[in-house]
Amino acid sequence: MGPHPAVAAIRLAVRRVLHDVLTDLATRDRAAHAGRLSSPAAAEPGRAPLVLVACSGGADSMALASALAFEAPKLGIRSGGVTVDHGLQHGSDLRAAEVVARMTALSLEPVESVAVSVGREGGPEAAARDARYAALDAVAERHGADAILLGHTRDDQAETVLLGLARGSGIRSLSGMAAVSGRPGASTRYRRPFLQLDRQTARKACMVQSLPVWDDPHNADPAYTRSRLRHEGLPALEKALGKGVVEALARTAQLSRDDADALDTWAAEAEQSVRDESGLLDCAKLYALPPAVRRRVLRRTAVAAGSPGGSLFARHIEEIDRLITGWRGQGAINLPGRVEARRQGGRLVIRQG
Amino acid sequence: MGPHPAVAAIRLAVRRVLHDVLTDLATRDRAAHAGRLSSPAAAEPGRAPLVLVACSGGADSMALASALAFEAPKLGIRSGGVTVDHGLQHGSDLRAAEVVARMTALSLEPVESVAVSVGREGGPEAAARDARYAALDAVAERHGADAILLGHTRDDQAETVLLGLARGSGIRSLSGMAAVSGRPGASTRYRRPFLQLDRQTARKACMVQSLPVWDDPHNADPAYTRSRLRHEGLPALEKALGKGVVEALARTAQLSRDDADALDTWAAEAEQSVRDESGLLDCAKLYALPPAVRRRVLRRTAVAAGSPGGSLFARHIEEIDRLITGWRGQGAINLPGRVEARRQGGRLVIRQG
Repeated sequence: MGPHPAVAAIRLAVRRVLHDVLTDLATRDRAAHAGRLSSPAAAEPGRAPLVLVACSGGADSMALASALAFEAPKLGIRSGGVTVDHGLQHGSDLRAAEVVARMTALSLEPVESVAVSVGREGGPEAAARDARYAALDAVAERHGADAILLGHTRDDQAETVLLGLARGSGIRSLSGMAAVSGRPGASTRYRRPFLQLDRQTARKACMVQSLPVWDDPHNADPAYTRSRLRHEGLPALEKALGKGVVEALARTAQLSRDDADALDTWAAEAEQSVRDESGLLDCAKLYALPPAVRRRVLRRTAVAAGSPGGSLFARHIEEIDRLITGWRGQGAINLPGRVEARRQGGRLVIRQG
Repeated sequence: MGPHPAVAAIRLAVRRVLHDVLTDLATRDRAAHAGRLSSPAAAEPGRAPLVLVACSGGADSMALASALAFEAPKLGIRSGGVTVDHGLQHGSDLRAAEVVARMTALSLEPVESVAVSVGREGGPEAAARDARYAALDAVAERHGADAILLGHTRDDQAETVLLGLARGSGIRSLSGMAAVSGRPGASTRYRRPFLQLDRQTARKACMVQSLPVWDDPHNADPAYTRSRLRHEGLPALEKALGKGVVEALARTAQLSRDDADALDTWAAEAEQSVRDESGLLDCAKLYALPPAVRRRVLRRTAVAAGSPGGSLFARHIEEIDRLITGWRGQGAINLPGRVEARRQGGRLVIRQG
């Protein structure tokens, strides 16, 4: 008799991602041998790959940890785990120690807890996220890990799309979380095996494997936007639109991501073609671009001039765009980061003042 | 003392659109005089332009009717109105006669009611919409109207985006209603002056002008998806995400529409560049396209081969795409409309069986 369907589902999802990790490592090794790349990790012969799971002790990441512990050895991969203590609740250190013990019980090795201090920048959720990824990056580098698995499910993805929708800043913010991501130089570090799997399956897999799980009180705290969305917003939307909403939102994320990538590629090429001999943006050439591409070129130029991307909103870009499409002698436009956009003799000049 | 702010807002919105209509007519007339275009309407000299309002008697379209009646004469435009009797409720003919009387009281002329019979195709809402636009098109042509104004507000737009989101079929379905639309040959017939205006402003404008309005019982009937969305889904989403959700959804619509247009343009060009000498699609060239563009090329090709666009879902396109990106000797793929996609010697062949 095979495993329970929920357990089979989480294992299959992890197995697929581990295969991807091995394929990427093999490609990197071939490149290293061909002398095209020299990477310390790739140069270590005979070392078994190491994959870590980031585990909060909640059902999603406990299910992930159990599936990693089961699948990794069969593929000759070492599997470990890390839990992040955000220090935001009393007793969070004890909680972290308990998660470490649970991961150890799953035979994960190495296993550790890292404490972080959460700042305030960008709000409580963003600050906690930034601190978490910085700590995970450091752990990955210390252990020479080839990947870190994250337990985000299709339900998390749907919530992320709705949060992006609320910003109203276009399709990039609708594209949710990537299946594979990471910072420059380690762009495939993070993998999300459960992005197509629903939360219920992860929960069920923990239950049938008798894994103890911990429900983060933040997840039910209505002070958090994501929590209100999860417990009130999404259920109401499902009631109005039908049960397929979560799946539709996750599919929208994937399609939006591909669309946004394609348009970014186009804008990068277009940016070169609309410059004159002296490198300035030619307004007539900008005018001839499709609005979607033109706006991306304007955004790229403003960011390159020193305007911080996170503070540059759609209304700023629209105002610059009117220098091109609705020219009636407007003055200079002030952008975040002391950057200024002005039209001068048929050219658009965007620079720091 | 000027008018109430709500009345000023609806009048400004209508005035802007009437200016657009006049500009478009002037452009057409110049083109006709230059002999580049011969249109019966443009050739009628001295005839004042005619703009109709489509009015259900509800607050949005009554506000629209009142603003049209006020603004049109000042611009030398004749203004009339039409109401559609869908025949779906007992006494709907009396209701239509009452709306005609209200429009007449606003000094609109010509004013009429048209009865339609609603079929069943695509569900009750789609069938009613199809019947309504067919009737409005016929009225516009009978009267030689230059435009028909529709009362959709920013709130309607937000609902339309969420309905599109629930389909999960990509950014085109997130792009909501266009400010200007119409069928081929009359692509600028329909104008939506209130697409940036909230429903509350339209309601307020009716109240302060003492205009009687009629609340369509369908709008509150939970049997209709849109009604559930309006009365439960959107309010819950606003509660979770904040009051700016409606505006964010409307902005998403505009950005998505521009993005989808740009990608469609790209796909139309790419489709030519990936064909070989005999006009067949070259798999290697398709593979080199960004996924977002490739999928649009595949969709275009399938539709051109006879597969009905409305029945061609994302999963069909993904299956064709795997012939390019995940080739392992798959057989032919069956698409709606007896269309078949198969890979043959490095070429992708999509045709009706």
